[in-house]
Amino acid sequence: MDEETLEEETEKKNLESLRGIIGSKDPDALSAFFDSQNPVDFAHTAAELDEEELKELTPLLDDDELASLMEESEDDERIRIARTLDNKRLLTAFEYMQKDDIVDMLGDFPIGRRKEVINLMKADDRRIINTLLRYPEDSAGGLMTTAYIALREKLSVSSGLDKIREIGPKTEVIETIFVINDCRQLIGWCDLRDLLAAPKDRHLSDIMHDKVISVAPETDQEETAHIVSKYDLDALPVVSRTNQILGIITVDDVIDVIVQEYDEDILQMGGVSKEENIDTSLAESIKMRLPWLLVNLLTAFLASYTVKSFEDTIAKVVALSAIMTIVSGMGGNAGTQTMSILVRELSQKNLKFSDCIRPFLKEIALGVVNGAATGAVTAVVVYFMYGNAFLGMITLMAMIGNLVVAGVCGFLVPVVLKKIHADPAIASSIFVTTATDVLGFFIFLGLANVFLRYLI
Amino acid sequence: MDEETLEEETEKKNLESLRGIIGSKDPDALSAFFDSQNPVDFAHTAAELDEEELKELTPLLDDDELASLMEESEDDERIRIARTLDNKRLLTAFEYMQKDDIVDMLGDFPIGRRKEVINLMKADDRRIINTLLRYPEDSAGGLMTTAYIALREKLSVSSGLDKIREIGPKTEVIETIFVINDCRQLIGWCDLRDLLAAPKDRHLSDIMHDKVISVAPETDQEETAHIVSKYDLDALPVVSRTNQILGIITVDDVIDVIVQEYDEDILQMGGVSKEENIDTSLAESIKMRLPWLLVNLLTAFLASYTVKSFEDTIAKVVALSAIMTIVSGMGGNAGTQTMSILVRELSQKNLKFSDCIRPFLKEIALGVVNGAATGAVTAVVVYFMYGNAFLGMITLMAMIGNLVVAGVCGFLVPVVLKKIHADPAIASSIFVTTATDVLGFFIFLGLANVFLRYLI
Repeated sequence: MDEETLEEETEKKNLESLRGIIGSKDPDALSAFFDSQNPVDFAHTAAELDEEELKELTPLLDDDELASLMEESEDDERIRIARTLDNKRLLTAFEYMQKDDIVDMLGDFPIGRRKEVINLMKADDRRIINTLLRYPEDSAGGLMTTAYIALREKLSVSSGLDKIREIGPKTEVIETIFVINDCRQLIGWCDLRDLLAAPKDRHLSDIMHDKVISVAPETDQEETAHIVSKYDLDALPVVSRTNQILGIITVDDVIDVIVQEYDEDILQMGGVSKEENIDTSLAESIKMRLPWLLVNLLTAFLASYTVKSFEDTIAKVVALSAIMTIVSGMGGNAGTQTMSILVRELSQKNLKFSDCIRPFLKEIALGVVNGAATGAVTAVVVYFMYGNAFLGMITLMAMIGNLVVAGVCGFLVPVVLKKIHADPAIASSIFVTTATDVLGFFIFLGLANVFLRYLI
Repeated sequence: MDEETLEEETEKKNLESLRGIIGSKDPDALSAFFDSQNPVDFAHTAAELDEEELKELTPLLDDDELASLMEESEDDERIRIARTLDNKRLLTAFEYMQKDDIVDMLGDFPIGRRKEVINLMKADDRRIINTLLRYPEDSAGGLMTTAYIALREKLSVSSGLDKIREIGPKTEVIETIFVINDCRQLIGWCDLRDLLAAPKDRHLSDIMHDKVISVAPETDQEETAHIVSKYDLDALPVVSRTNQILGIITVDDVIDVIVQEYDEDILQMGGVSKEENIDTSLAESIKMRLPWLLVNLLTAFLASYTVKSFEDTIAKVVALSAIMTIVSGMGGNAGTQTMSILVRELSQKNLKFSDCIRPFLKEIALGVVNGAATGAVTAVVVYFMYGNAFLGMITLMAMIGNLVVAGVCGFLVPVVLKKIHADPAIASSIFVTTATDVLGFFIFLGLANVFLRYLI
């Protein structure tokens, strides 16, 4: 049995056990089952339950088990779980959850229930939750948690360690301790290692590092993830305009952001909305994909119109209609190659103008060389198929021409889109393939028209 | 001035300052400059220096500054720095570096120098380095560091904390403490929080968690990254067949792996080698891109041959040659949409057969609906352009047919590639677009041939 099948088998067995326990309504058996698994795997199994089963599962769970289940579940799964709970039970479970997870959940609630639940919270919690809810989900503020450790600069190392011992269990990050002044302004940070090694009577201000990298709550999540990964941070503090610490962003949230942003790029490069996945309904899929196809249809008309203008030429040498598809298709392939390199390069940094010149010239040279190579192969095939050397020559020239077009457009389109602050991943491909289609047809049929008398 | 220009300005100013300091040959000024910056930014600036400047920079750096520069530099940059150093200096700098970074560097060295350097190392270091070098760079073993904390189960909490205070500064992760038995087998882990909160005289075995997620050193880096991100781990232990701990994988390495794997997917979906970037030389680029273009050329011949078989039909109704490009092009676009969804879905998990049926049927329905919509628009345009309703009808039918082909192939090709353990990101697009080209031409021109007498 290979590894994948083994994993599927385990999942199936877990689901069966869970269903058995739900049937027996035995909370102790459920606790034992819960303890025997990683919470992530338990959430994974619970996601396979139908509505009825889920409704019977949640009353059997302890509050902390329920909280863990919600924390480890996917967004839509959390909502499905919350629907089986009344507000009182939900609030008890929230006691065991991180504030940023609660906010994520509430953000997906219907507005009515969200307000109900928030109004039932303790004043302190309500204030924090309302503040966090203000920030867009894809900003640093929407991503941050309030469960961090910030200690006053005047604290001694030993009192600092006492504090950490006390609040540590409730925080997400313990390795990085932030240091604040009396106005709660962020003025430094300590590594827990430094604290453990330092003499007990020193003040935090003596041992802290005073260069802190931080972001504003409005910072885009992609930019935020980039900073955490660039500087290898455990935790990135989010600060107000007056430099007061509002929360921290932890590295596990950053991984989720990176995965999400890349997935979006891959989908959008393929002309699909970032919201779509394999379970999207037919109606939704139509609504999301058809507009893109209609935009592409416009560009297809353009290419088709180019061919139509050479109808007289094609009528005289009908072989052109078969060969022209090779020229346009190869241009599209070569253009996509260049474009992929640029899109990836631009996703990580800005290219300075002076850094562009050499690579741009290289793409042109590459168009000539690759065009000559593929064109020569095609020319030979064309010659043997149609017995006309001129037809082969024209194909070769057109192929070189179109692969140079591919290199130029594959390079410039993403760069220009980035410059005008559009996302190169979304829009590049339509411009590049339109150019290689239209110009591919134009160059090939145009050359054929010029040398028509040698072709007939 | 917008933010990007500001960043560029800062970079330019930093580079000028660094050049000035190199010119003045003043190590104190350099140390002050080094301290004023984040090491990542310093490495970034140093990467802009030319060979001569770099050669003058390295003697001015302290050993720990040099080590930090090498740790924070990109792979090829590290090699450029190492070239300015003799073996003695290199070994001194290595003292300040993590073993996994040293191994990464040595792996990129020319084999001669690598052996020289390793032979000059202390026996202990040599043994560790040689062990780490045995694992492929893209495996868990190649990724792991040996700077972790593993304590014996019989240790008391207070001696454990003493140990941590002592070796903590040399390790990469302090939050997770691994617990081993007398045979160095991994039997559990503690959160540093638990240790700080626990009574001083308890044994580690009393407070440890005994469910440990670990991987074998041969595990692929993508799989490894997936486990760390799925279970939100700080550190993932790598263990031998006999469950002895060999090293740990830290979350910052995992982020690098995720970014790298996604970049590879994006490049390979575009038909480019994962090794290529914007600075690849012309000769290298040709070597990497031409083979893919030649493979594509073969499929282009196939499509072209399909058109050629209908030459007689086209000769009679030359308008077909313009319209057929719309049908094939739209099929390609729709196929790419479906394929992108599937490639993304498959990159994260396996799809069970039973999960596939509904989405597959949806893609077929989507092909019919989107084909009918874009086909109807095209049919109207064709009717007004060529004044032939039958031509419009045939276009509509062909468009529906080809968008169904696109849905079927866009779905099945990635699924089948995954099933036979090929990477869907690399090879899907060529199969899908070949299908939509060949069948697009075939359906459209075939229909035209059948209804030929209504078209003339």
